[in-house]
Amino acid sequence: MSKAFLAEDFLLDNKFSIDLYEKFASALPILDYHNHLSPKDVAENRKFNNITEAWLEGDHYKWRAMRMNGINEKYCTGNASPEEKFLQWANTVPQTLLNPLYHWSHLELKRYFGINELLNKSTGREIYEKASAALQLESFHTHSLLTKMKVEIICTTDDPADDLSYHQQFAKQNSGFKMYPTFRPDKAYTTEIPAAYNSYLDKLSSTSNVFIQSFDDLLQALKNRIDFFDGLGCRASDHGLSYLYFDEDSLSKAPTHFKKITSGQTLTTIERDQLRAAVLINLCKIYKERNWSQQFHLGALRNNNTRIYNKVGGDTGHDSIGDYPQALGLSLFLDQLDKTDQLTQTIIYNLNPADNEIFATMIGNFCDGSVPGKIQWGSGWWFNDQQAGMEEQLRTLSLMGLLSQFVGMVTDSRSFLSFSRHEYFRRILCNFMGTEMEKGRMPGDVTLAGDLISNVCYYNTKKYFRF
Amino acid sequence: MSKAFLAEDFLLDNKFSIDLYEKFASALPILDYHNHLSPKDVAENRKFNNITEAWLEGDHYKWRAMRMNGINEKYCTGNASPEEKFLQWANTVPQTLLNPLYHWSHLELKRYFGINELLNKSTGREIYEKASAALQLESFHTHSLLTKMKVEIICTTDDPADDLSYHQQFAKQNSGFKMYPTFRPDKAYTTEIPAAYNSYLDKLSSTSNVFIQSFDDLLQALKNRIDFFDGLGCRASDHGLSYLYFDEDSLSKAPTHFKKITSGQTLTTIERDQLRAAVLINLCKIYKERNWSQQFHLGALRNNNTRIYNKVGGDTGHDSIGDYPQALGLSLFLDQLDKTDQLTQTIIYNLNPADNEIFATMIGNFCDGSVPGKIQWGSGWWFNDQQAGMEEQLRTLSLMGLLSQFVGMVTDSRSFLSFSRHEYFRRILCNFMGTEMEKGRMPGDVTLAGDLISNVCYYNTKKYFRF
Amino acid sequence: MSKAFLAEDFLLDNKFSIDLYEKFASALPILDYHNHLSPKDVAENRKFNNITEAWLEGDHYKWRAMRMNGINEKYCTGNASPEEKFLQWANTVPQTLLNPLYHWSHLELKRYFGINELLNKSTGREIYEKASAALQLESFHTHSLLTKMKVEIICTTDDPADDLSYHQQFAKQNSGFKMYPTFRPDKAYTTEIPAAYNSYLDKLSSTSNVFIQSFDDLLQALKNRIDFFDGLGCRASDHGLSYLYFDEDSLSKAPTHFKKITSGQTLTTIERDQLRAAVLINLCKIYKERNWSQQFHLGALRNNNTRIYNKVGGDTGHDSIGDYPQALGLSLFLDQLDKTDQLTQTIIYNLNPADNEIFATMIGNFCDGSVPGKIQWGSGWWFNDQQAGMEEQLRTLSLMGLLSQFVGMVTDSRSFLSFSRHEYFRRILCNFMGTEMEKGRMPGDVTLAGDLISNVCYYNTKKYFRF
Repeated sequence: MSKAFLAEDFLLDNKFSIDLYEKFASALPILDYHNHLSPKDVAENRKFNNITEAWLEGDHYKWRAMRMNGINEKYCTGNASPEEKFLQWANTVPQTLLNPLYHWSHLELKRYFGINELLNKSTGREIYEKASAALQLESFHTHSLLTKMKVEIICTTDDPADDLSYHQQFAKQNSGFKMYPTFRPDKAYTTEIPAAYNSYLDKLSSTSNVFIQSFDDLLQALKNRIDFFDGLGCRASDHGLSYLYFDEDSLSKAPTHFKKITSGQTLTTIERDQLRAAVLINLCKIYKERNWSQQFHLGALRNNNTRIYNKVGGDTGHDSIGDYPQALGLSLFLDQLDKTDQLTQTIIYNLNPADNEIFATMIGNFCDGSVPGKIQWGSGWWFNDQQAGMEEQLRTLSLMGLLSQFVGMVTDSRSFLSFSRHEYFRRILCNFMGTEMEKGRMPGDVTLAGDLISNVCYYNTKKYFRF
Repeated sequence: MSKAFLAEDFLLDNKFSIDLYEKFASALPILDYHNHLSPKDVAENRKFNNITEAWLEGDHYKWRAMRMNGINEKYCTGNASPEEKFLQWANTVPQTLLNPLYHWSHLELKRYFGINELLNKSTGREIYEKASAALQLESFHTHSLLTKMKVEIICTTDDPADDLSYHQQFAKQNSGFKMYPTFRPDKAYTTEIPAAYNSYLDKLSSTSNVFIQSFDDLLQALKNRIDFFDGLGCRASDHGLSYLYFDEDSLSKAPTHFKKITSGQTLTTIERDQLRAAVLINLCKIYKERNWSQQFHLGALRNNNTRIYNKVGGDTGHDSIGDYPQALGLSLFLDQLDKTDQLTQTIIYNLNPADNEIFATMIGNFCDGSVPGKIQWGSGWWFNDQQAGMEEQLRTLSLMGLLSQFVGMVTDSRSFLSFSRHEYFRRILCNFMGTEMEKGRMPGDVTLAGDLISNVCYYNTKKYFRF
Repeated sequence: MSKAFLAEDFLLDNKFSIDLYEKFASALPILDYHNHLSPKDVAENRKFNNITEAWLEGDHYKWRAMRMNGINEKYCTGNASPEEKFLQWANTVPQTLLNPLYHWSHLELKRYFGINELLNKSTGREIYEKASAALQLESFHTHSLLTKMKVEIICTTDDPADDLSYHQQFAKQNSGFKMYPTFRPDKAYTTEIPAAYNSYLDKLSSTSNVFIQSFDDLLQALKNRIDFFDGLGCRASDHGLSYLYFDEDSLSKAPTHFKKITSGQTLTTIERDQLRAAVLINLCKIYKERNWSQQFHLGALRNNNTRIYNKVGGDTGHDSIGDYPQALGLSLFLDQLDKTDQLTQTIIYNLNPADNEIFATMIGNFCDGSVPGKIQWGSGWWFNDQQAGMEEQLRTLSLMGLLSQFVGMVTDSRSFLSFSRHEYFRRILCNFMGTEMEKGRMPGDVTLAGDLISNVCYYNTKKYFRF
């Protein structure tokens, strides 16, 4: 007998799966330890003027689908009206069948707005009006959108040169959830363009009160900012890189490379790799002192389309998956820190699923028994943040590591409407385990499986980040 | 309850799948936009003297299976009689259980010849005689073999230096289907052996009426041939490469590299990469002017076995899958064309399934909203042209792109008996979607799914190639 | 209806699967042609003093899981008592849910000891005592552990410099099974550390009675040892490498590189690659003369953790999967041997599942019809030796090669309790085929499938190795 779309048993294929979800997963609060929400929108409890603002304003997933569907840029990042944009999106939705956007969109309409109709050409206008009207209510401002989903903690992603004023402003409010910054120092080692790098150093000098003239100054400035972030509840750093790199000369040569780029000269690839490695190694040692966790998002090939980049910039849906070698660099980098026991809790995320097993086995090399699940392979990221991607991550992690110690899901999103993705993940996790139970590949003991599930959905994260 | 082999519901696991196949897929005609059929065999409406000629003459898939089964080369490419060869193949078939050859062979016997018995040692002789006898009938000559399968259009694969005389001859016939050439200029940038390259240039000079002495002459000669191909209905080019490559110097240095090889000197790897890149970039701009589509088949590692190559040559079943890095080269090459809006509709096929996600996400970077599904990731190619390979391609494409805009299946085959593979693909596609419906992961709306299916099986292709 | 854990139909999802397992697979003896059992423990019919000795003494899989679970090194390789170690392992087992250790552990308790309880904190002590007591019985000494599982032949893994005295000792016994050595000459081409290499050469000089002063001496010494191994029933060699390599200069330059390292100088990477290639090419030609099979285990990235390596050494659970390019090196190496028809039966094992299709298609290039399944892709190795890994290997092998000629499973284990993994493999194989039959993707002919299964589980191996 076939099942209805998005029904109570959505993604749950058998009794065990349903049981596990209902008893152990559905009611747990959310600890979203990595996302790209705007601290300003949180601090100001933003009200969205219409569903286009809330749904399409910064969502490059949707723009990308629209372009693949033959929709003009005007309706993506262009100057069409909010309603025009939404209607073009509504036309596109039926063409996204079997893409995660189809699930996400309808789940969000249902959970946030109570809208059960399918979005398409004929329902577009009505849904636009209904959802936009709802967003005017207090119960749909950003705070309410989060608390409605039982969000307890969100960790945003912030540059060291950011003054965190919105975090300070929010910290004084009494909103029913916490917001912490995450230290993301990518610009401190992004050295492709000397002028851009030097201009960033100026900014960082100013925020950190360290006049950065040498490599040591840079480290001191970053250290100051780490202290400041820590004071606002930051418990983790994050880094976006093509790959991790380390060689024996990195640390000793970095000051020279730094001098070269700050004098306006362009670095070679190896010089950039070494300078980045040296900054990172030094930062990671400080994270360890602070007992922070560190995250690495590896493997993206970004800004592939020059024509559109020159028009509308980055993060607009023109990135893809790279096929860089990952294993050796990861090994050497982590080992360099571990040699002196300066490797803190670490989460590595991979973008290329062909590398799943590389990541799943690498984490086991540096678990030293000090902290359960000390090194983690992060949940399905970006293009892998969908049903099959999550299932593969869960399957490979369980087969090559310990699923039981996994810290689970993050939205990694810019959208306040994306928190139903935690539900999506939890259903997939429960179905993954329930199916194994159904087939007799695990004991039919709901408590045994349920303990693991509630740990993965909530308690592991709480312990891991000291929330 | 278990199902019978090759029954009406073959590969269709539930009611939705069966419904979708019967109502939307089974009756559609075939647009086989990429294959290696012999234009001569089509133009002359060839009659095969026996089933060995039709089935084993050029089929390196079957030879390869026979060799793995311990069968002597004599029965593959050697001088054994047609009947001896067939009987050795018949002995091998049961050993191919779970290989696509097992499905393909029995499906072809059933659909073309009405033979329902399993092929093996004890049925071999009888099937040889029955099928060979059938092939003598007018209704089994090449035209009939194609029209029997509702083939509307076939696109063969042709060298620029080919005079296309069989295409001209066929164009005058009234056969119930169309045959168009495809422009495949691989030899114009295959520069490993200077003597071979120069001899090819002589041939191309002669066909194109351009005496090729410089890089510009080469481009002019190819342009002339593109015009000629276009006149015979050609709507697409195709290219077989290990990987795509582009660097900033490719265009400026190509004339020098060309001069070097035409003077008989051997090029270095980087020189070959640059010369190839420059020829391709220039060709691609012309394809865009003609509104052709361009295809790239990437990732093969060919002619691994020197001993057999020296005896029987290439395309004999001694190729395999390469593990070249693909992402960056693809990105730079496509971007170079896109920068000036000279990137035409493009289909990229990958041989290494570890690269599936690289390809699935790369296509999204260059869809600019001008044409639905402008950049395509081609259907499971060669070793991936089987059930699991197709399912993976459909799954990954749908999760990371838009399945709804996919231009679907090609046989890519040398065999006039291979057109039941379109049925094979359609069943897999319908089962893929039907299973999602059955599980409540898609709305149970047969029309919604059916529209997508008929587009993927026929209508998208018709629009994409302007057939 | 859900199934009980580890019941008779464990891993068998339908009637066909159950039938195939019971009728064709379950009763067959075991030919374990590659493992790391201790010849001493076999020759001396070792009695284990407790279950920790038998289960945890050298099992880096279990140590690794314990460390990931936050257990201190003391309980892995440290000086905790056997009982303390076992109890920490018992605590860890429930946390390994969905990891193969969970299946393996409970299957071993059940098959060897008749223990059906789940191992965890509350059952740990009782199981420790029960299993340890059983091990004191004659029927649990190493010979009995093997014959209980119907083991007919085991092939251990031995260094050329090993005197094989335990093999000689065992050869005189009448134990109901055979033990043969396997020639594993890794140290003869592991040249990272000149001092270690030269010290190995001294040892090999002594065992081989060849005073090794030149590259030719080395080859002569190895040849002597091959003769000696052959005399004790050895039918195969084995090699552990990151990747296979060959270039045109390898053979001519090897003597110079050899002179360089034996004079105490460090080799460059390319020199090491060339010297290794030259040793291997020469060895492989001798294997061919002896009609041995040769095995290559490719793709590991070993000893990632320097801190622990300095404390407890290698093979302690700090290895992972590498992402080396494999295709071209494999092709050139095998082709070099094949050119002169000096390529013997070969089994290549890959550690990175992203390379599955590389390996599955490479083997077809060098099957020349002389021996059925001449070149083999080995069964799921190490991290891939689990349900999904085996299923992927079977699936990919069947789709891109001939499953029917596969030589099947090996334990590759140090543990005398690991032979129930053959049962595990057989169940997976039978379920793989039974499921295809159930779905009508194979004829519902149990004999057809059963022949293939008994060949893969036993008869192919017997023929391939001339056992």
